[in-house]
Amino acid sequence: MDIIKQFELSKEYLESLQHGIENRDLDFIQESLDGVNEADIAAILDELSLDESIYVLRALDKQIAADILIELDDNTLIRVFRELENPEIASFIELMDSDDAADLLNLLGEREREEVIAYFQDRLKSDQVLDLLRYEEDTAGGIMAKEFIRANKNWNVIQTINEIRRQAENVEKIFSIYVVNNRQQLLGRVSLKKIILAGENTRIEDIYEPEVISVPTYMDQEEVAGIMRKYDLESVPVVNAKNKLVGRITVDDILDVVQEEAEEDIQAMAGISGDIEESDSIFMITKARLPWLLIGVIGGLLGARIIGFFEDGLNKYIALASFIPLVAATGGNVGIQASSLIVQSLASKSVFDDTPLKRFIKGFLVAVLNGVLLAFFVFLVVVFIYGFEPIFGITVGVALFCVVLLASFMGTVTPLILNHFGINPAIASGPFITTTNDLLGLTVYFGIAMLLLNL
Amino acid sequence: MDIIKQFELSKEYLESLQHGIENRDLDFIQESLDGVNEADIAAILDELSLDESIYVLRALDKQIAADILIELDDNTLIRVFRELENPEIASFIELMDSDDAADLLNLLGEREREEVIAYFQDRLKSDQVLDLLRYEEDTAGGIMAKEFIRANKNWNVIQTINEIRRQAENVEKIFSIYVVNNRQQLLGRVSLKKIILAGENTRIEDIYEPEVISVPTYMDQEEVAGIMRKYDLESVPVVNAKNKLVGRITVDDILDVVQEEAEEDIQAMAGISGDIEESDSIFMITKARLPWLLIGVIGGLLGARIIGFFEDGLNKYIALASFIPLVAATGGNVGIQASSLIVQSLASKSVFDDTPLKRFIKGFLVAVLNGVLLAFFVFLVVVFIYGFEPIFGITVGVALFCVVLLASFMGTVTPLILNHFGINPAIASGPFITTTNDLLGLTVYFGIAMLLLNL
Repeated sequence: MDIIKQFELSKEYLESLQHGIENRDLDFIQESLDGVNEADIAAILDELSLDESIYVLRALDKQIAADILIELDDNTLIRVFRELENPEIASFIELMDSDDAADLLNLLGEREREEVIAYFQDRLKSDQVLDLLRYEEDTAGGIMAKEFIRANKNWNVIQTINEIRRQAENVEKIFSIYVVNNRQQLLGRVSLKKIILAGENTRIEDIYEPEVISVPTYMDQEEVAGIMRKYDLESVPVVNAKNKLVGRITVDDILDVVQEEAEEDIQAMAGISGDIEESDSIFMITKARLPWLLIGVIGGLLGARIIGFFEDGLNKYIALASFIPLVAATGGNVGIQASSLIVQSLASKSVFDDTPLKRFIKGFLVAVLNGVLLAFFVFLVVVFIYGFEPIFGITVGVALFCVVLLASFMGTVTPLILNHFGINPAIASGPFITTTNDLLGLTVYFGIAMLLLNL
Repeated sequence: MDIIKQFELSKEYLESLQHGIENRDLDFIQESLDGVNEADIAAILDELSLDESIYVLRALDKQIAADILIELDDNTLIRVFRELENPEIASFIELMDSDDAADLLNLLGEREREEVIAYFQDRLKSDQVLDLLRYEEDTAGGIMAKEFIRANKNWNVIQTINEIRRQAENVEKIFSIYVVNNRQQLLGRVSLKKIILAGENTRIEDIYEPEVISVPTYMDQEEVAGIMRKYDLESVPVVNAKNKLVGRITVDDILDVVQEEAEEDIQAMAGISGDIEESDSIFMITKARLPWLLIGVIGGLLGARIIGFFEDGLNKYIALASFIPLVAATGGNVGIQASSLIVQSLASKSVFDDTPLKRFIKGFLVAVLNGVLLAFFVFLVVVFIYGFEPIFGITVGVALFCVVLLASFMGTVTPLILNHFGINPAIASGPFITTTNDLLGLTVYFGIAMLLLNL
């Protein structure tokens, strides 16, 4: 037994495979990939040329090739599809679970998508896929699969097992069997364990659990993830407006959702747009990074104008320049902290959450506490270590305190506003807000200095 | 059928429950909480006083109360435990799955933990829990459970079903049945579906899949999450150094791991230490935020020293002050982008990753491209819109270019170094690195200005 197959893959292995492809050595390729997990083969294909990849896919069993395609990254997949004719694409896609099939079809143009589906041999699959394609990609309907076992409440255990047998080939993983009435409305669930332990003639009606958590087709995938996490569900049934059972979502799909949403948030915070990886091309990475850097640069240029506006005062009191970075950086740091906490609490909202007013007051109190402590510390350093006159220490301290309050307010309000308009609130912790805080901070700093220092 | 029970919970419901507790109305409490999911009851308890919570826990069925305790947040749990005697704590904990039991016991002091385990009535459970407590908390051993179904390869289906029946009460969720030899070494797995579809006398040896992915007890939980995600596993068996099957990890535990690691990264980026939520106390939030703000402030104070050092030059050329925020902010933004991409690629490392040298060259090229474009843009604005002399535009442009290169280098190197020493690389995208970049940027900016402007 191989503990974890992935650890066996090496550059040597890759080279021997390429050698086999070059020599069109079908037997060697099939043998050396036999039993290797599809996810690992997909990782190997990412390292091969397009022609080599397609040669390998065609060399393998059709079902295995379909499973490999599911694991490929989107860019590779699009390039592979471009090389294949529509009937061949269809022959792979119709072997996939309906949710994966729909995801892959979404990578094709609308006309090509329809052509590919038209080539499906499996009528049921094409109906299922067409149904799934109607839903928004990031809702419960968009991530659910049509493959699941449903049992009528009037069946007995033996009828249910026969249904499982009938569906066995289509439904790979069975977590629960969903129980429906004659109108296909969801009534509850019964675990496979219960089916095994019950007598053959036991009626489903007598053993099913009526307390089932289901989600509507239109629910946002992030909310679905939250529910599955909260209730430790391994799968969740999806129902339409009339409570008719239309699909199921399994926890392995949700794991991807959680990971992707987290990566999205981190990229938003870092000021990187789109789903970019370190391995993407220099041009792609620059395209994702430059616009956000430009926002920062434009902010910096506006900042130059603000400071220029106070140039007379600055000329009289040159030390003011020294504390520009302190004020700007603290504003940025406070803003990011405040907005991150709000973003996090938005993601795990509950009915018992504090009212917006209470949250503001609390954020305000935290800011006052942080601001007072930091301002006092800075005053001490500026006056007693750096040796500036007390009024200048007070100026820097008061400015810092005001900037902390202001940045905290901006950091609290911005994600709430973005969220209200359906925009990912995580961008409130990104370069845009930092830049805004910088500019506000500069204005407050110089304004207070003009007042207190009589410039 | 209730679509999702959580939506029913309201402040009115909470008040009626509190009224029931006040009147010691056991029947009312039991009736109104009957069928409500444990996770929801836990959310209700978070809103009640400690005395009220304990009253409710004692009013409910012991098993349900144990399930509620698992869902409580750690702070509430510690307060509840402080009010209960050790025998009562034991009576709850021994009803939990071994992994949850071990997690909760880890919240107690060492002596109390041992006392509580000594009160267990269930010998098997105390052995399991003692075994689990030996492993590091964030390894496979630390998150696995001892509840799983194992079948000897020599058994037939009916023997296996008898084992499932015997274990039915202990093992809530069965995904796979693990197949072992006489020395309890892992050989493979067989799905519950296959058991149902096979004849009663079929031998396990003939139907099990030998290609099972397992993880060793010492594997980091994040790596386990990566493997389960990559291979779409709903559960993974955990083996010791001799390939003996010692536990299993289910995907719902992994979902929590992924979520927690993501939150940790975001908090590290935002400069917030510890697992803090918006709902925590003002003192707790300040404690988590202030140290990071202080780093920024100390950085700002050092920055003041650097600028002070160049005060003579600044006096001669006061406009230099205006572009301090531009240079500092761009350095910070570039650094965060670069480090976030590295952190992300570290999380999904593969054997085919580029060598460190190649990654540096690539990062360098991206920085050169971004730097040239931004510097040229800034030069144009400074000279043609703001009307400064060309040599000053060149100064700001060159300084900006150098800062982009430097910040990019720091953003690439820092997470790699942190990762090498086993520190969470995400803190490289936080306040510490931004502050360092600010200081380096200021030095480079003024250094170049002194040279080019002959100050």
